[in-house]
Amino acid sequence: MSLGSSSNRVDAQAKVTGKARYTDDFTMLGMRFAKYVRSPIAHGKVKRIDISKAQTYPGVDAVFTYDDVPEFIFPTAGHAHSLDPNKLDVADRYLLTDHVRHQGDAVAIVVACNQLTAERAVELVEVDYEELPVMTTADQALAEGAYPLHPGGNVLKQQAIATGDLEQAFAESDFVLEGAYHTPIHQHCHMETVVSYAYMEKDDHIIIVSSTQIPHIVRRVVGISLGIPWSHVRVIKPYLGGGFGCKQDVLEEPMCAFLTMKLGGIPVKIELTREECFTASRTRHSFDIKGKIGVSRDGVIKAYALDVKSNTGGYASHGHSIAAAAANKIPYIYPRLVFGYKALTFYSNLPNAGAMRGYGAPQATFALESLVEEAAQKLGMDPVDFRLKNVAQLGDFNPVNKKEIKSCGITECLTRGREMFEWDKRRAACVEHKGPIRRGVGVACFSYGSNTYPACVEVSGARLVMNQDGTVNLQVSATEIGQGSDTVFAQMAADVLCIPDTWVRTISTQDTDISPFDPGAFASRQSYTVGPAILEAATLLKEKIVAHAALMSGQPARNLSIRDGKVVYGSRPDYVLYEMREVSMDAYYNQDQGQPFFAESSHKTRTNPPSFGCTFVEVEVDMPLCKVTIKDILNLHDSGRILNPQLAEGQVHGGMGMAIGGALFEEMLIDAKTGIVLNDNLLDYKFPTILDLPDLHCSFVETHEPQSAFGNKSLGEPPIISPGPALRNAIWMAAGVRIDELPITPKRLYEHLARAGLI
Amino acid sequence: MSLGSSSNRVDAQAKVTGKARYTDDFTMLGMRFAKYVRSPIAHGKVKRIDISKAQTYPGVDAVFTYDDVPEFIFPTAGHAHSLDPNKLDVADRYLLTDHVRHQGDAVAIVVACNQLTAERAVELVEVDYEELPVMTTADQALAEGAYPLHPGGNVLKQQAIATGDLEQAFAESDFVLEGAYHTPIHQHCHMETVVSYAYMEKDDHIIIVSSTQIPHIVRRVVGISLGIPWSHVRVIKPYLGGGFGCKQDVLEEPMCAFLTMKLGGIPVKIELTREECFTASRTRHSFDIKGKIGVSRDGVIKAYALDVKSNTGGYASHGHSIAAAAANKIPYIYPRLVFGYKALTFYSNLPNAGAMRGYGAPQATFALESLVEEAAQKLGMDPVDFRLKNVAQLGDFNPVNKKEIKSCGITECLTRGREMFEWDKRRAACVEHKGPIRRGVGVACFSYGSNTYPACVEVSGARLVMNQDGTVNLQVSATEIGQGSDTVFAQMAADVLCIPDTWVRTISTQDTDISPFDPGAFASRQSYTVGPAILEAATLLKEKIVAHAALMSGQPARNLSIRDGKVVYGSRPDYVLYEMREVSMDAYYNQDQGQPFFAESSHKTRTNPPSFGCTFVEVEVDMPLCKVTIKDILNLHDSGRILNPQLAEGQVHGGMGMAIGGALFEEMLIDAKTGIVLNDNLLDYKFPTILDLPDLHCSFVETHEPQSAFGNKSLGEPPIISPGPALRNAIWMAAGVRIDELPITPKRLYEHLARAGLI
Repeated sequence: MSLGSSSNRVDAQAKVTGKARYTDDFTMLGMRFAKYVRSPIAHGKVKRIDISKAQTYPGVDAVFTYDDVPEFIFPTAGHAHSLDPNKLDVADRYLLTDHVRHQGDAVAIVVACNQLTAERAVELVEVDYEELPVMTTADQALAEGAYPLHPGGNVLKQQAIATGDLEQAFAESDFVLEGAYHTPIHQHCHMETVVSYAYMEKDDHIIIVSSTQIPHIVRRVVGISLGIPWSHVRVIKPYLGGGFGCKQDVLEEPMCAFLTMKLGGIPVKIELTREECFTASRTRHSFDIKGKIGVSRDGVIKAYALDVKSNTGGYASHGHSIAAAAANKIPYIYPRLVFGYKALTFYSNLPNAGAMRGYGAPQATFALESLVEEAAQKLGMDPVDFRLKNVAQLGDFNPVNKKEIKSCGITECLTRGREMFEWDKRRAACVEHKGPIRRGVGVACFSYGSNTYPACVEVSGARLVMNQDGTVNLQVSATEIGQGSDTVFAQMAADVLCIPDTWVRTISTQDTDISPFDPGAFASRQSYTVGPAILEAATLLKEKIVAHAALMSGQPARNLSIRDGKVVYGSRPDYVLYEMREVSMDAYYNQDQGQPFFAESSHKTRTNPPSFGCTFVEVEVDMPLCKVTIKDILNLHDSGRILNPQLAEGQVHGGMGMAIGGALFEEMLIDAKTGIVLNDNLLDYKFPTILDLPDLHCSFVETHEPQSAFGNKSLGEPPIISPGPALRNAIWMAAGVRIDELPITPKRLYEHLARAGLI
Repeated sequence: MSLGSSSNRVDAQAKVTGKARYTDDFTMLGMRFAKYVRSPIAHGKVKRIDISKAQTYPGVDAVFTYDDVPEFIFPTAGHAHSLDPNKLDVADRYLLTDHVRHQGDAVAIVVACNQLTAERAVELVEVDYEELPVMTTADQALAEGAYPLHPGGNVLKQQAIATGDLEQAFAESDFVLEGAYHTPIHQHCHMETVVSYAYMEKDDHIIIVSSTQIPHIVRRVVGISLGIPWSHVRVIKPYLGGGFGCKQDVLEEPMCAFLTMKLGGIPVKIELTREECFTASRTRHSFDIKGKIGVSRDGVIKAYALDVKSNTGGYASHGHSIAAAAANKIPYIYPRLVFGYKALTFYSNLPNAGAMRGYGAPQATFALESLVEEAAQKLGMDPVDFRLKNVAQLGDFNPVNKKEIKSCGITECLTRGREMFEWDKRRAACVEHKGPIRRGVGVACFSYGSNTYPACVEVSGARLVMNQDGTVNLQVSATEIGQGSDTVFAQMAADVLCIPDTWVRTISTQDTDISPFDPGAFASRQSYTVGPAILEAATLLKEKIVAHAALMSGQPARNLSIRDGKVVYGSRPDYVLYEMREVSMDAYYNQDQGQPFFAESSHKTRTNPPSFGCTFVEVEVDMPLCKVTIKDILNLHDSGRILNPQLAEGQVHGGMGMAIGGALFEEMLIDAKTGIVLNDNLLDYKFPTILDLPDLHCSFVETHEPQSAFGNKSLGEPPIISPGPALRNAIWMAAGVRIDELPITPKRLYEHLARAGLI
């Protein structure tokens, strides 16, 4: 059948031929363009603003400042709404502000007939700022008497979890090891920058076309930000060129909506430049983590605890959720112990951090798998053996949420990886490298969730309509953002309907006025949470098809079935009663009976099984040059059943590449004193290109998750988690230095090697 | 409740503020424009065509001729598909032709960067024609040895019906009267001309945006015309500025699709000029009718027979259906008699006729109600009395299809009209007018169907989704083309759901990839055929809402109900359990139970009740000036239950205005010898403006049609039927001349008055 095979991406042809149209590929008659007046400083208050010159600049339609925007404070995080007021996202933002909290914060906006005019007019706006103390670190922001960035102060939220008596567990450990870890600020660097436009069709109907992962959430937040009913907002998502979590925030949509509303419904587009994306969209949270692990002499982890400080920058965006999510996702990997987790998210004058692939897990796992490595080394155990002794087994329970693990392939990931990678042979060989060029191997594990339940409600929806020719249109609000979900959804529907997957067309454009409700793409949720909705809708559709064939043939429906796109006798599937087209045509056009086939389902997922996996890596370190070369890297994944091996491999390669970038290359450099971003562009912010990456290898340990509609679990984010600590561990082995802050650039490696007296 | 009240049009604000966007209001990056090379003669064959100069003209992308178009012959009529091959529309057209059959027939097409360039390049195409004999009349086209316009000859189809022994019925009549009638060619004159554009999203996905009444039919026909699966075509219909049946044909959509396919998916737009609409879109069929009526001395009509020749022009389009439909629609009005109907539709070298409001009924009813008037006069009976004696009564059967009449208000229409119009007083007064200014009164009746069943399959669909705020989105594929259907659909849904109708947003844009299947706007079908689908979908939605409220409250669902948009106790409807918003929010966001509310229904209508009505009119005829002035005109309608009195009145006013235009003003003038249209524009084709029309009056006799979901019957087309014969009858009374050909312009009146020696 279709599922499990490497069907081609449904959007491959459209994308490579340029027929796929992205948000910026659309225009409208009379469209206007808006540009922000942004703060050049990281913290201050506007003393004086003069927009008069900009207002009268030819081609300018309007200029708005913080004085003109709605009084509604709003959140921007792409979370499903909650009925529990305590679970609502932090609303701490207006459309424009006179209290600028980071470089690039917006005080005014110009609308003009084209981009260039808008840019020129922006330069004509005069703003004087009262400079305020710039806080970039936890120490500064959390200091006694620190300037409060928001009314509640600079602590956004904190939490403390312990799944047992931590003190006692550490006390009973034979060894207790500690470490301190730092992860950097990353930028998502999606190829398509942030872009949206809005127009009105009626006075009570604002239409927003946007490059977003979360159309239905955008709809809600725009409603909140403008103080209008949510149903007055319609959000349409065309093809999308990458999001990686940045577009899991509500970004320019509220402003576009506000502007078109102010300008009588004419279309207004906002497209951020790459530079604006760096300073004024979202980033990955930098974590400072103190970690502690207790192990017994025989190689059992008794407890570990992480103490996280998460820097969210000037606004909350996803707020504390990033740090909190890690506490839900990482405990699956080593579940038979006492788990301690403290976390605090604070405001600072850095650019606003939000969701990014992995959502806290890469940061926390970097600390955890570094600590685990410390313990293995301390015990003199092979790191794979040590992990094998402690990783999750079928029937274990997550110590935090007490959920049972019902599919678990991590042991096989480690054992198969050890064999495929020739771990033992390579590891033994590494020990011999003592010259200027040294080698080391590293391993690291991870666990991850498959959606956001029970933190958030997990709704999905699917609607199927059979066309006259027997092909099927599939509508979902889960969004294709490059990950291949449209393809896998088509395969799911085809699989249930017993038709070729090329017969299913996934409607890739979401439209909140009509697409079945679903919050969108995040938390590696889509194939897991949408699966049940597609399964139900396709099952209903199949029943209708068979029922109509029964009506046509005079056979009881029970006698009939579908095979290879044909209606057949259930007992003699080689005997074809009807081509699918014949049944569908009759359903459409028989004057006196039947009806066209359609089916819809909505489902709330209330399970959230973990995926597992690990990375094996070998590095070569050129000691004099402080240069790290990856000689081989292998990711192994238990993501349940693999629905499309080719796409799954693509997901893993993409994640591994991004992880390598995060571990060895990428870091937003921000002047600690001024809060100014020093590398706000793709020349200075170095991420690896295809030439910087080694061949990427992966393997899937296929389990069958029983709580899943199709046996699958999450795969979108997992590949980004374990390469970082695996690389850190390999470099430690090769170069003899523990580097507990990422990225491990040549400069950082030099500092450590020099400090250790190794060069 | 909402139904039956004069809710404002849901699109009123969008349309009057200019926010409503029509097909031509959309543009796309890189859009191209196409213009046809059209034949200047009405009949000929291309001897030589040279496109080389046009091809190399700067800005021209491509030129295609009849040699380049697909080999697929296709029909264009906007009928639902039929499984019966004998019922399929006549396929007699390619995208371009070398055998031009009417002035404006297209031999080539130019695609260029803008309209002007395309127009200039069209002039550079050199075409030599071999001229062929031009046939504009039945005599010419049906003559022995006439040049066959299509392989099957010039008779498109003919039929003969008699519901009893006609000969005998006429023999038993005391009087038998005969007449010959002619109705002219009209143009629809929709404000928005014919316009479409197409582009591709993938190689197997052509998207067409079009001003069409029939998106799903366009999809099918484009598939046929290009030889591609229907599901490869997606048709989107934005706001539409009038169709009146012209846009119930598949017009420029296949060509747009062909061009974008040839040009690698770039968007190509075709917009016809007003002149092109006259010669190369569709017109109303001209009918030549011979009629005969037999009556008894005591005022009973024993039989009548019509013999119709319908001139379809160069192509079939709706073909014989127009003439045939009349035979189904008119027999309801006088059902207790023998009905005879012969009809023949023939090809000629006139512009192609197609569907137009009334679809044959205005033509046939003009003959019938003229004959009835002859009989009344012959018997010396008051024309109202005579009609009252013969019109349909509840329980009568249509003599042709044997269907029982289950709601019937025609008697009350006549009696109420007689009273409202002060018919007897006015009629008596008219007799006194003998000077140069004379007055006359006239009356005429009609009957009409409410859809196309059983001629075609009658599918409708509706999908409802409740938004978080308790408002509801309604999707249909029935198309709003100005008639107000979106408003009435919203009222229907609101009525069933017991919510304010302002809470329902009808999604006005149809999209064949996603909108529930329904063939579109024609045959005055929409509120009748879509009613059951909305009723079912809304009932399902209501059940879901109540079920979820039951879940929330712990009450059995049976205890609960909805009133005024709130969930209440069934037994104590003043006790509000929940606001609708609360229930919907819980359905969306309760983590552990429920699901967002949606419901969809598809329905095949298998009943087709007749509407009835009549016109009373008083005219003043200025004998020397040959000028007719309408002093008063009143339409009465039995359209079952009136769903929105304000919109119903608007429909009736529009139809009456169009009918007055058709009776007194409008006629496409075509040179009989050359087939050239002499008045192909709105300066020379005179239709009445608001200043040319009298105050229009109407009244509704509300019956309740038991076969209807909401008691309603057709209303869209009926108002156009009876004013024509009523005017003819009034002018006869006033001026003393029977004018049996329309329009009764001053010129025509002069001819008749002069011939009769009256001036």
